[in-house]
Amino acid sequence: MSLRQTLDFLLYDWLHADRLNERTRFAEHSRETFDAVFDTCERIARERYAPFNRLVDTEEPRFDGERVILPRATHEAHEAYVASGLLGAAQDYEEGGMQLPFTVEAAAGTFFATASVSIGSGMLTKGNANLLMVHGTEAQKAAFARHEFSGRFSGTMALSEPQAGSSLSDVATRATPDGADFESDALGPRYRLRGNKMWISAGEHELSENIIHLVLAKIPGPDGKLVPGTRGISLFIVPKKLVDAEGQLTGERNDVALAGLNHKLGWRGTTNTLLNFGEGKYPVRAQQGGGLDGRGAGAIGYLVGRPGEGLRCMFHMMNEARIGIGMAAASLGLAGYYASLDYAKNRPQGRPVGPAGKDAARPQVRIIEHADIKRMLLAQKAYCEGALALLLYCAQLVDEQHTGTPEAADEARLLLEVLTPIAKSWPSEVCLESNSLAIQIHGGYGYTRDFPVEQYWRDQRLNMIHEGTHGIQAADLLGRKVLMEDGRGLALLMQRIDATIARAAQREDLAEHAQALAAALQQVVAATRSAWASGDAREALANAVPYMQAFGHVVIAWTWLDVALAVPQGAKEPAQVGRLACARYFQRYELPKIGAWLGVVASRDPTCAEVPEESF
Amino acid sequence: MSLRQTLDFLLYDWLHADRLNERTRFAEHSRETFDAVFDTCERIARERYAPFNRLVDTEEPRFDGERVILPRATHEAHEAYVASGLLGAAQDYEEGGMQLPFTVEAAAGTFFATASVSIGSGMLTKGNANLLMVHGTEAQKAAFARHEFSGRFSGTMALSEPQAGSSLSDVATRATPDGADFESDALGPRYRLRGNKMWISAGEHELSENIIHLVLAKIPGPDGKLVPGTRGISLFIVPKKLVDAEGQLTGERNDVALAGLNHKLGWRGTTNTLLNFGEGKYPVRAQQGGGLDGRGAGAIGYLVGRPGEGLRCMFHMMNEARIGIGMAAASLGLAGYYASLDYAKNRPQGRPVGPAGKDAARPQVRIIEHADIKRMLLAQKAYCEGALALLLYCAQLVDEQHTGTPEAADEARLLLEVLTPIAKSWPSEVCLESNSLAIQIHGGYGYTRDFPVEQYWRDQRLNMIHEGTHGIQAADLLGRKVLMEDGRGLALLMQRIDATIARAAQREDLAEHAQALAAALQQVVAATRSAWASGDAREALANAVPYMQAFGHVVIAWTWLDVALAVPQGAKEPAQVGRLACARYFQRYELPKIGAWLGVVASRDPTCAEVPEESF
Repeated sequence: MSLRQTLDFLLYDWLHADRLNERTRFAEHSRETFDAVFDTCERIARERYAPFNRLVDTEEPRFDGERVILPRATHEAHEAYVASGLLGAAQDYEEGGMQLPFTVEAAAGTFFATASVSIGSGMLTKGNANLLMVHGTEAQKAAFARHEFSGRFSGTMALSEPQAGSSLSDVATRATPDGADFESDALGPRYRLRGNKMWISAGEHELSENIIHLVLAKIPGPDGKLVPGTRGISLFIVPKKLVDAEGQLTGERNDVALAGLNHKLGWRGTTNTLLNFGEGKYPVRAQQGGGLDGRGAGAIGYLVGRPGEGLRCMFHMMNEARIGIGMAAASLGLAGYYASLDYAKNRPQGRPVGPAGKDAARPQVRIIEHADIKRMLLAQKAYCEGALALLLYCAQLVDEQHTGTPEAADEARLLLEVLTPIAKSWPSEVCLESNSLAIQIHGGYGYTRDFPVEQYWRDQRLNMIHEGTHGIQAADLLGRKVLMEDGRGLALLMQRIDATIARAAQREDLAEHAQALAAALQQVVAATRSAWASGDAREALANAVPYMQAFGHVVIAWTWLDVALAVPQGAKEPAQVGRLACARYFQRYELPKIGAWLGVVASRDPTCAEVPEESF
Repeated sequence: MSLRQTLDFLLYDWLHADRLNERTRFAEHSRETFDAVFDTCERIARERYAPFNRLVDTEEPRFDGERVILPRATHEAHEAYVASGLLGAAQDYEEGGMQLPFTVEAAAGTFFATASVSIGSGMLTKGNANLLMVHGTEAQKAAFARHEFSGRFSGTMALSEPQAGSSLSDVATRATPDGADFESDALGPRYRLRGNKMWISAGEHELSENIIHLVLAKIPGPDGKLVPGTRGISLFIVPKKLVDAEGQLTGERNDVALAGLNHKLGWRGTTNTLLNFGEGKYPVRAQQGGGLDGRGAGAIGYLVGRPGEGLRCMFHMMNEARIGIGMAAASLGLAGYYASLDYAKNRPQGRPVGPAGKDAARPQVRIIEHADIKRMLLAQKAYCEGALALLLYCAQLVDEQHTGTPEAADEARLLLEVLTPIAKSWPSEVCLESNSLAIQIHGGYGYTRDFPVEQYWRDQRLNMIHEGTHGIQAADLLGRKVLMEDGRGLALLMQRIDATIARAAQREDLAEHAQALAAALQQVVAATRSAWASGDAREALANAVPYMQAFGHVVIAWTWLDVALAVPQGAKEPAQVGRLACARYFQRYELPKIGAWLGVVASRDPTCAEVPEESF
């Protein structure tokens, strides 16, 4: 099935996204308007992204000392994307948007991500501007966010530092008030920032007129010291070029300097940078800010929200960003699946196994006729379409959170809290395995750069790392999300899963799956309890990753069972037969894996944690 | 622990390799002579291989139209390796060798493979020459093999063709008698070969004076047609440059032409080629061979063994070649383990989880103090050292096969038949996961080319493909090896495993593992029976890969239990504590995974095989 066919089924037959227009915000929409968006995305992705995916891998970004050079194709893809209006499509009509549901926006993104994930489709810019729409002042929205949605500016998230990747409490970038009048700037309280930010995607390029960095930094206390921990973190807008209240460039370059490009294993169409803030390379308004030490006065930044609330503002966007990573992972997985399916249908090799083995006198068959190739194809399909389904479900929860009744919105929020670590981690891990299977189907050819599958696999490897590593997601899930609000989130998810089980139990062809899922769910719940039985976080979290792996498998088994319920019993159409096969594959081949993962969680197995360092 | 410490323990404390000198062939050897070999290898690997591993990845082989250009470092590493005498070290004293046991030779290879797997250490050349020592005539040994062992010549294995990778029965390269006197050549029956060979590693380069290709081809029948299937395959020596009976170059270039270099995902220090045989680029002795069609007369090749027995000759070397791939996989895994261990010991980040969670006021710790990092380190250690142990055990079986009593030799042969698919496939798959964990420990840095772990992961990906893909190994294991000689091989392996279980059951600290392994072994045996219960190969083999995965896990659990028996109970030395931790990790975290794999095998689950093509 094509991506479009799969999306159509999941969105309309399964999630009934066409009913979103029952909400006031989406009243003007219909399946027709959604389809028009998909048509546009499909076309741009086909024409401007897919043909250049290898090119952007080969022609890595480079710095000529002045500017970062990207291939012409990247500029053209970016222009086409901007021209489509998708950057601001989810915004209000009065902001120039089209009030597109997040579900549709997220689905639309898969066309670009399957075509060329690293050329990018504005995820960071949208996330940046969306944050400002929630936490920024009207002036900040007007000067920055509006121009990001129009594509004039692009955005980054500058959290990590060279010495503090996952550990944000150790952020060392300092922000000090910029002069006595620092609070009277129209764009917000004005600070001077100094520090280094690492792993900043799209941190420097010439794709847009300006780059708006959202930077985490600490405001020193009266003693000049930084507050330890995350409580001391504030959030700042630091534009590469200064702007006036209308967002027009003032002609002043801010002191944000590229210190280096990171040379990556994959995802090479996107620049990834180390940025120096306020180190004096581009001194700005020096007389105003001081800078007596000759290092410049610092980069100018405008506070967003209140001091000390930087992380809270950032986390507001985290769910959507993490769903975005999951979507990228599922899309890369699907790209590999489609490539290997195409190869398997066309490559003749070997003979089918008959009841008594092989017969060399028979003609060769296409490799899709071999059972092991089918196994690798079905695994990919079950992994990637399962991941896609969960992500669309999560995207719909985002819409529910924003447009549902207060009760429904609260439930959606809670479910998202619990599901987001899975939506981010599961596709990252399992679609990597999927991409590896796509290589395997190609045999030696898959190991060459003449076929696209090796690049998908390399690109995919990033997803377990950025936006919170696997370990961070797992600690979040078992250490926070399943406990929060007295376990209400977990209980709510169980209710939803139970509801699916109850419906599936009524169907002859799904009753076996329903039973298996019910048993698996009990295992997860029991393991959660056992993990926390001693109340010692060290013991509970020592096996947080295996816990998350098992939890994820149960969630996807549930997703597939729910998707299968949207397929009529006994359906004969090839696509429907394929969906039921995925549900069956997942229950038979994958779900039984949870036993091994949960065993160590339930026993709070200390084997790993207890190994003395010198014994490695 | 360093590689050397690990090898020392496995070879001497566990396998008692120092007792090999009880065999006549190895009587002159001792731990001292073995250690001298290891010292040499360690030094060359450290000085000539490790520093250039990234270089050979960056400066891929290129073809200037005339010659293949490799970095100078590759030439220097090759020269140092040749100078060490290791190529011929396993040969008889009268051949100039040192009658080194295969066990020691295999162990020695890990120093090079951990330092730079793709610079290579003569595995193909040794394999090629070893084959000639068994199947070649005295003249062929003198003209070819002897000069390969000395390093003057290098060797290849030319099996695959562009249209026939795994499917050797479809080899289309033709060999026809070269003139009426074709049987009177001193170097063996002389043929003319025409065809294309794909995926030929080291197929063209300037590292040695000559390249000796061992080529599979078919001799047409009287009707001019090729015999279908593998029965029609013969084996030929096709040198790049013709030689006389002494192995001196005659000055004639044979018609073997580079058609293209494959551009690979990794393993870039080794050229991989498409070669044209006999297409007329280098016409050779044209008057003698005909060549009336203007395409040249064909490449000159000398028959090895008898016509139609080419595959049998090749397979003779297959066990050793596959152990070699397993060794490469284990070595790459270890390289990643060492790199990530070093990183984890030195990178400060985050705080330890206390009973009540984290305290940001405490200073940062090095990441090795986090439980999840320890989990990823212990998994790598258990995977890679476990793989290494199994491979050394297999290497010892090779020595047993060649130097043991007839009964012991026969048992070693049988065990090798059953274990070889595991020794090749398990490290390829699981050490890839290990290399991924090494990246994960590095966080964002692991995704950059500034650290070595991403290259190890790319290099590793080849191992599931070359020398027989995963699917081929699995079909070999379940379709042939566990059945052969009425299941004698499987029964013998079970006896060995049972003996370990019986010993471990006596030890308080290992009794739990022994019990778990005994249960797992029963599961494998039962699944083997169930897979074949219907006698239909289609049903049995549909889930051959999951079967092999489970079988491999049981074999490694056994290996670790046996290794643990070489550690005294209650041992306190750090290295010993680490080994016991690995055995425990494997039993607790890994062995329970077999249930999911064997479930589908035992039920002959048809889910994958039954999916209609149009449903994907």
